[in-house]
Amino acid sequence: MKVYHLYSGGKDSSLSAWILERMGYSVELVTVNFGLLDSWKYAKETAERLGFEHRVLYLPQDIIERAAEMAVKDGHPNNAIQFIHEKALESLASLPEVERVSDGTRRDDRVPFLDLSKARSLEDRFNVAYIRPLLGLGYRTIRELVDKLFIVEIRESEELEKSDYEVELRHLLGETGIDPLTIFPKRHYQSRVVGWRE
Amino acid sequence: MKVYHLYSGGKDSSLSAWILERMGYSVELVTVNFGLLDSWKYAKETAERLGFEHRVLYLPQDIIERAAEMAVKDGHPNNAIQFIHEKALESLASLPEVERVSDGTRRDDRVPFLDLSKARSLEDRFNVAYIRPLLGLGYRTIRELVDKLFIVEIRESEELEKSDYEVELRHLLGETGIDPLTIFPKRHYQSRVVGWRE
Repeated sequence: MKVYHLYSGGKDSSLSAWILERMGYSVELVTVNFGLLDSWKYAKETAERLGFEHRVLYLPQDIIERAAEMAVKDGHPNNAIQFIHEKALESLASLPEVERVSDGTRRDDRVPFLDLSKARSLEDRFNVAYIRPLLGLGYRTIRELVDKLFIVEIRESEELEKSDYEVELRHLLGETGIDPLTIFPKRHYQSRVVGWRE
Repeated sequence: MKVYHLYSGGKDSSLSAWILERMGYSVELVTVNFGLLDSWKYAKETAERLGFEHRVLYLPQDIIERAAEMAVKDGHPNNAIQFIHEKALESLASLPEVERVSDGTRRDDRVPFLDLSKARSLEDRFNVAYIRPLLGLGYRTIRELVDKLFIVEIRESEELEKSDYEVELRHLLGETGIDPLTIFPKRHYQSRVVGWRE
């Protein structure tokens, strides 16, 4: 039972990878990248520290370009992030070897998030199972499990040594002369999973 | 990390109990009963076969009486089942020793099901975490895991040797002169988890 799990190296996607493994799945972590930055390397590093298989899935740049246009038009990144995530799931699900896809989206997430009809549509169109281990968990449960399992490094920084969609999206906005701070909320801290607690 | 898990002895609540245990929780199974029938005994038997702690939580009969009225008024059991489940979660969450409650509700369930605001309200009002291990899983994933884990006995029967809310609700309707078949869909088969596959 192999599952391909969209992975940013963050707390949520790391926790869900662990749950999948505990459920008996053979888990391969997949980090999406558009070839603009090598930001996938942070996720790969965390994946290695946690002992998971990892691959990078390159997606066409026109996806992130369309996402950037959406973010500029909206003045916030929500629809852009949602768009990228749906494309990431579809691309992963369309690979011939993939029968099961998963991600770390949570009950309390607003984006990215697939509602019931979108989740079923993904499964039906690509003939895959879509598994979200954190969907039935609240923030308190997730925090408790993350604290128990992972060493998390929290740093005061605007630099994003992360592998999520935001990194390349900010970069692309910057390249086209748009200050990412007009789109994304300012972040004072960033956290990274750096290993197992035991 | 102890979790109190609403348990009917069926496939969904058995699978979710297993996932909770794999996630490192100490799991106590809780079967709700209104004192009309000793139908809790089937869940207790399955719990014992699977090696879980088990208790019966008796709820006031006025809850199932109100549920029966709803079912008769509606002509179908959905709102009644939803009502009982919410009361069951609230009763369990209000016990002083309980910090985490869970159930086997699924992504594709219509009832019983707590939407996001009801789930958060349960957590906030009773200061508990509410965990639903199957919420992020589709029917295909659930079937695959159930088939892998459990021996399930399927029998052609109208008799409900089960411990879910429906059993006592049907009984109460019958007692008050109402044919349960006018409320509940006719079932040709029933399934029961009878043990671990290995």
